[in-house]
Amino acid sequence: MAANTDSDALHRDAIVIDGLIVSNWGPEVFQAMRDGGVTAANCTCSIWENFRDTCANLARWERWFDDHGDLILKVRTTDDIRRAKQSGRVGIILGFQNTSGFEDQLDAIGFFKQAGVGIVQMTYNTQNLIGSGCYESTDGGLSDFGREAVAEMNRVGILCDLSHVGGNTSRDVILASNKPVAYSHCLPSGLKQHPRNKSDDELTFIADHGGFIGVTMFPPFLKRGPQSGVADVVEAIDYVINLAGDDAVGIGTDFTQGYGDDFFDWITRDKGYARRLTDFGEISFPKGFSSLAEYPNLTAAMADAGWPEPKIRKILGENWLRLLGDVWGTSDG
Amino acid sequence: MAANTDSDALHRDAIVIDGLIVSNWGPEVFQAMRDGGVTAANCTCSIWENFRDTCANLARWERWFDDHGDLILKVRTTDDIRRAKQSGRVGIILGFQNTSGFEDQLDAIGFFKQAGVGIVQMTYNTQNLIGSGCYESTDGGLSDFGREAVAEMNRVGILCDLSHVGGNTSRDVILASNKPVAYSHCLPSGLKQHPRNKSDDELTFIADHGGFIGVTMFPPFLKRGPQSGVADVVEAIDYVINLAGDDAVGIGTDFTQGYGDDFFDWITRDKGYARRLTDFGEISFPKGFSSLAEYPNLTAAMADAGWPEPKIRKILGENWLRLLGDVWGTSDG
Repeated sequence: MAANTDSDALHRDAIVIDGLIVSNWGPEVFQAMRDGGVTAANCTCSIWENFRDTCANLARWERWFDDHGDLILKVRTTDDIRRAKQSGRVGIILGFQNTSGFEDQLDAIGFFKQAGVGIVQMTYNTQNLIGSGCYESTDGGLSDFGREAVAEMNRVGILCDLSHVGGNTSRDVILASNKPVAYSHCLPSGLKQHPRNKSDDELTFIADHGGFIGVTMFPPFLKRGPQSGVADVVEAIDYVINLAGDDAVGIGTDFTQGYGDDFFDWITRDKGYARRLTDFGEISFPKGFSSLAEYPNLTAAMADAGWPEPKIRKILGENWLRLLGDVWGTSDG
Repeated sequence: MAANTDSDALHRDAIVIDGLIVSNWGPEVFQAMRDGGVTAANCTCSIWENFRDTCANLARWERWFDDHGDLILKVRTTDDIRRAKQSGRVGIILGFQNTSGFEDQLDAIGFFKQAGVGIVQMTYNTQNLIGSGCYESTDGGLSDFGREAVAEMNRVGILCDLSHVGGNTSRDVILASNKPVAYSHCLPSGLKQHPRNKSDDELTFIADHGGFIGVTMFPPFLKRGPQSGVADVVEAIDYVINLAGDDAVGIGTDFTQGYGDDFFDWITRDKGYARRLTDFGEISFPKGFSSLAEYPNLTAAMADAGWPEPKIRKILGENWLRLLGDVWGTSDG
């Protein structure tokens, strides 16, 4: 299970892209990401926040880019991800897990794209102006305003993320989008039933429509729960690959490094404060992966599972890189 | 058709409550309301606005209450409505046509109740955090957050208005509310098919569940369109009474006095600026009712239709007064 020399060398050489990290941002986490060999990651900077507070979060990121330019750089294009790799820094893809930051303004979408936001989840757990969430009792699908938002995200080049989105809304976004969309961080309900996990039909549907699946490793959603280790994550990735093929799958750890109970209370209540939506039970990191610095252990588990090197490279980052190029456009002048 | 002496005297003596006016507020409209014998009206002070801008609108009302205390007074209770009648002024019921002003805060509901808001429509034409609107392609019904909002509106005593709300969401609110709810301003689709009009089944359903219907007079929704006059309004009221009984029906004119094309552009686009939701065609006031000052002509048309005085008094205001007492509580210390 521990990283061996070969898999470690591969990990250090590979492009490693994490489709979702929601950690307690700051230099300690940036250092752990670099120590773990993360080339780039979709870093959550808005969950329940409105327009103003989302902008304030982005402003704090700009300060971090200035103050910690030895560790991180801002990613606007896939060339920026390659630049991160070459310079040994972590590429930060600014991402939202909700469209609350848009409020009711379609023009906010282009504004946030200009600010560097590359990935936005359409809803977070519950209904908003655009659609419904995975913890709602009902899901009426994508609203008409939501259709306008998808078209605008397509136009400016922001990836539509569906991980916490309701089933009907997800289907509608997959059909409405003229660019690939993604579950950036999810697990298969074929291994464990949970409102946040996706059925075989849902995973097949998104892949059949050119979409993408980032597999997460949050133990409450894994088959063995808090007993899970990196081998269980690799098993889950293989389950998804068997449905979607090995070109449409990557990793989205959902890593929550540096956060405690207050954070989990905030994210599991509607709007961050209202009714409780779910109880995760015991929360832990997978065994062998308790810090982003231990990312090489995941690659070691892939090698232990007998994955050939090209498959490992695809899942670690090459697939994400191609998807992001498709959505953002590949040129950056 | 013109007001005769008897009906005019009845109008001046009656309690006249208008379930929805959305005019270009200011002393000219206040004067017209008083000239028209309006005892009290649900006056729209938020449609697409967020929390801050809704509060700004309420602040402007406080200025008007100070500056025009000879014409208007603020209504918090049904006793305030009686006080308006006794003092020959117009009682202003502060109302919202959308829950956008709540943003995502359930505590905003009690805050706005304290500010004097007595009636709030759950959605305006399209989807929000609470439910869906009458111009949406789909309506998933009341969201779980919406259920919490209905409970809080019940608790603090704010009437749930469903006029511009989608059919499924309306049904869910009617069933979820433990106090009577209302279509404050609508017309029957039995007389004219329109997304804003309500079917016989919908009108019967709300009445069967203790709810209320205010009948509007916006000519585009009336059978004869721009040719409509006050007699057509009375016909529509009788149509609704035949379904709901004469205790559950009142008036909600939707009067737009003092507004021009810019206003209709604003209200017929999603969020006030996005896609066009509907085209009203030619917009006019009903013949005989081109200013709020001509309100007595509506009473004359009721008399012309042979309505007995007790029925006229109920529809003009007594039914609204009882409903508001049921929702707000009758005592005001």
